[in-house]
Amino acid sequence: MINQEFKDMIQAPSVIRALAGYANRRGKEIGYENVFDYSLGNPSVPVPEELTKTMIELLNTKDSAYLHGYSPNPGNPMSREVTADHLNRVFGMDYTMDHIFMTSGAAGAVAHALRCVTKPGDEVLTFAPYFPEYNPYVNKTGAILKVVPADTTSFQINFDAFEEMLNPNVQAVLINTPNNPSGIVYSTETIQKLASILESKQKEYGHDIFIISDEPYREIVFAGVDAPYVSKFYDNTLSCYSYSKSMSIPGERLGYVAVNPRATDANLIVPMCCQISRGTGHNCPASLIQIAVAKCIDLTSDLSVYETNMNLIYNELVDLGFEVVKPGGTFYIFPKALEDDAVAFSEKAKKYDLILVPSDSFGVKGYFRMAYCIDTEKVERSLVALREFVKKEYGR
Amino acid sequence: MINQEFKDMIQAPSVIRALAGYANRRGKEIGYENVFDYSLGNPSVPVPEELTKTMIELLNTKDSAYLHGYSPNPGNPMSREVTADHLNRVFGMDYTMDHIFMTSGAAGAVAHALRCVTKPGDEVLTFAPYFPEYNPYVNKTGAILKVVPADTTSFQINFDAFEEMLNPNVQAVLINTPNNPSGIVYSTETIQKLASILESKQKEYGHDIFIISDEPYREIVFAGVDAPYVSKFYDNTLSCYSYSKSMSIPGERLGYVAVNPRATDANLIVPMCCQISRGTGHNCPASLIQIAVAKCIDLTSDLSVYETNMNLIYNELVDLGFEVVKPGGTFYIFPKALEDDAVAFSEKAKKYDLILVPSDSFGVKGYFRMAYCIDTEKVERSLVALREFVKKEYGR
Repeated sequence: MINQEFKDMIQAPSVIRALAGYANRRGKEIGYENVFDYSLGNPSVPVPEELTKTMIELLNTKDSAYLHGYSPNPGNPMSREVTADHLNRVFGMDYTMDHIFMTSGAAGAVAHALRCVTKPGDEVLTFAPYFPEYNPYVNKTGAILKVVPADTTSFQINFDAFEEMLNPNVQAVLINTPNNPSGIVYSTETIQKLASILESKQKEYGHDIFIISDEPYREIVFAGVDAPYVSKFYDNTLSCYSYSKSMSIPGERLGYVAVNPRATDANLIVPMCCQISRGTGHNCPASLIQIAVAKCIDLTSDLSVYETNMNLIYNELVDLGFEVVKPGGTFYIFPKALEDDAVAFSEKAKKYDLILVPSDSFGVKGYFRMAYCIDTEKVERSLVALREFVKKEYGR
Repeated sequence: MINQEFKDMIQAPSVIRALAGYANRRGKEIGYENVFDYSLGNPSVPVPEELTKTMIELLNTKDSAYLHGYSPNPGNPMSREVTADHLNRVFGMDYTMDHIFMTSGAAGAVAHALRCVTKPGDEVLTFAPYFPEYNPYVNKTGAILKVVPADTTSFQINFDAFEEMLNPNVQAVLINTPNNPSGIVYSTETIQKLASILESKQKEYGHDIFIISDEPYREIVFAGVDAPYVSKFYDNTLSCYSYSKSMSIPGERLGYVAVNPRATDANLIVPMCCQISRGTGHNCPASLIQIAVAKCIDLTSDLSVYETNMNLIYNELVDLGFEVVKPGGTFYIFPKALEDDAVAFSEKAKKYDLILVPSDSFGVKGYFRMAYCIDTEKVERSLVALREFVKKEYGR
C-alpha cells in the first residue's frame, strides 16, 4: 500500500523551493534577469577550469572500466587517500584513508554520520538558525531533532539554552559552520566552549556525544575571518563535507565523512557507513567525478565573487538601517526584517521583484535570508530595488 | 553513541565480497589472469564509444552550471522525458516524465520504491534464488523480507509455495528478471500468472500489492528468448532500472524508478520519492552522467560477449554432466553443485583457481553461481581447469 507518511510530506513543500518556483514563473513574465532571486544556494561561479580539463583528459586516455567501474563501498581508494592527505596538510590532522568515507554530497555524509552514532528515539541537538533540511535528515533516521534557540546578537551559540536542553538522551550535536543561513563562522572560542561542555557531559552521562560537523561552506571564508576546523577541538567529531560549493559541482553529489582518528571506534565508523549504505540504496558517489576531483583536490572555483557581493549587500543594508551581523563566509546573509512578521516582509518584497526567504523555517522569527550566489551586476541592480522597497513600504 | 546494529553488521561480510577478496589476493600470488574469478557481477565490456564522446563534447561545449548544477529532486527534466519516451517506444508504454524518478542505480531505485509502498512491519516477498542484497534493501526500511522457495526445475516461480506464503500483510513482491543469480528470464506465462494471483489477492485483501521489478539486466537477453516487460502485465508495478550493466557504468550509479501510469496514486509516487530522498541523503544521481546517458538513451555496450561466454560454459557444464538450466540472459549461470554442500564444492574449486559462489546466500542450497562477465579467452582457459576439477575431485 502507498506509504501515507511520505504521501503526507508532499503537502508541505519547502518555503525556499516555493519561492524559487515563484522566481522562475515571474522570470518568464519579465525576464529572469529582472528578478532579484536570492532564494536558492546554487553556486553561480564556474567549476575550476582544471577540473573540466581533467575530466576530458581522463575520458580521452583512461580505460572505461577504470573510470566507470564499481568503486569499493567506501569510495575510490585513491580518492580517499588524497582526501586524507589534503585534510592533514590543510588542517594539521592525522587522517588515513580508513577514516574517509565518500558520499553523495554533504546530505549523504550527514545521513551516514547520523546513523552511525544515533538510534531511533535518540535526541540530536542543532542550533538556530539552521538549515531546514536537518529536520528530515535527522527525523527520518528515527532520532529526534531539537533546536537550540538562536543567539541573535552574534549568531554564535546560545550556550545557556544549549546547557538547559542537554540531557542523557542527546547522542549527537549537529553544527554548521560557516553557517547557512546566517553566514556566521563559529569562533575558536565558541568551538572550544562547545567541546568543553560536551567533554564534561560525556563523562557525566557515561556515553559518547558526537559532533556532526556539516561543512560544505568551509572554503568560503572572507578576509580577516578565522574558520577553525571543528575536529581539531573535539575527538568525537564526524566532519561532513561536500564539493558542491567549493568546486561549484552540486549536481555531481560528491562529498565525504572524515572520522576523527581519536573518535570512539574511529576505525569502525567507515565500515559501518558501508553497512548503512546497503539499507539506504546509496552505494557510493559517481566514479568519474571522484577520480577527477581527487586529481584537483587543492583547487576551488574562484570564490571571490561571494565576498564582493556580501560587502555590497552588507554595506547597503547597514546604510538602510537594517540590523545585520556581518557574514564571515558562505554566500548567505541574515538580516532582521523591518517588521516582526518576516513572511509578510518577504511577501511585500516580491512587489519589487526581490526574492527574500523569511527566517521562520530556519528556526528564528523576524529575519530573512539572502543567498547572494548570483552575478555582482545583478546584486548592484537589486540594491536599487531594495532601497525603493524599504522607502515605499517602511518609509526609510 | 555508536549504533550497535550497524557495528554488528560489519561482522557478517558478504560471501561474494569475501570470494572476490580471495581472488584478488590469489591474483597477487599467481597473476590475476590465472585466477578464474567468477565471483563479481562487474561488467567487463567497455562503455558505448558514443557515450564517452558525448561526455567529452558536453565538457568542451557546455556551461559548467548546466553540466554540474543541482538537478531538480526527481532528476534532470530532459533525462526524465527522454527515459519516458524510450520506454514508450521500446515497450509500448505510456509513461510521461512525471512517472520517472532518477536514482543512484537500481539499488537507489529499489530503496525508493520499497519505501513508497511499504511501511515498517509489512511483508515483502521475493523468489529464490535471489540477490542477497535484498535482505538489507528490504529489512532496513523496517519491512520484512520473506523468501519464496525456488522452483529448481526451471527457476521460474514456485507458485504453490508463493500462494501459501501470501497473506494480508504482504504489501509488495520484489522480482528480478532476467535473474541474478539464475540467468533465467521469467516467461510471459509466469508473469501473467503472477499478475493474476496478485490481482485477485488485492481484491481479497482490499489493498494494493505492488510489484517492485528490479530490471538491471533487461537488455542482456540471449537469442530466441522473449523478455516480457513486467509493467505491461500488472498496473501496480514500479520498474527499477540501472544503466550499470547495459552501458557498463556501474560506478556512475545511474538508474530510475518508472511508475506504471495506471498504478494507484501513480502521479504521487515520484513526489513521494523526492520526500524519501530527503531522509536517506540520496538526493539525485550525478548530473553530467544523467545528461550524457539521456543523449545516448538507445545505445548499449556490445553485450554479445556475455552470450558467447554463456554458450561456452553451458555446453561444457552439460558435457561434464552438471544439472543446469540454460540462462536466457544476464551474465550469470546457476548450475547444481556436484555435492549437496555447495560451500564445500566451492572450497574445493579454489584449488583449481576457480572462484565459484556457493548458492546458500541466494536462498537455495546445493547450487553455485558463475558471473561470466570476463574475457572469453579467460573463460576458455577456465574450462580446462573446470574439467580437471570435476575429474580429480568427483571422478567424472
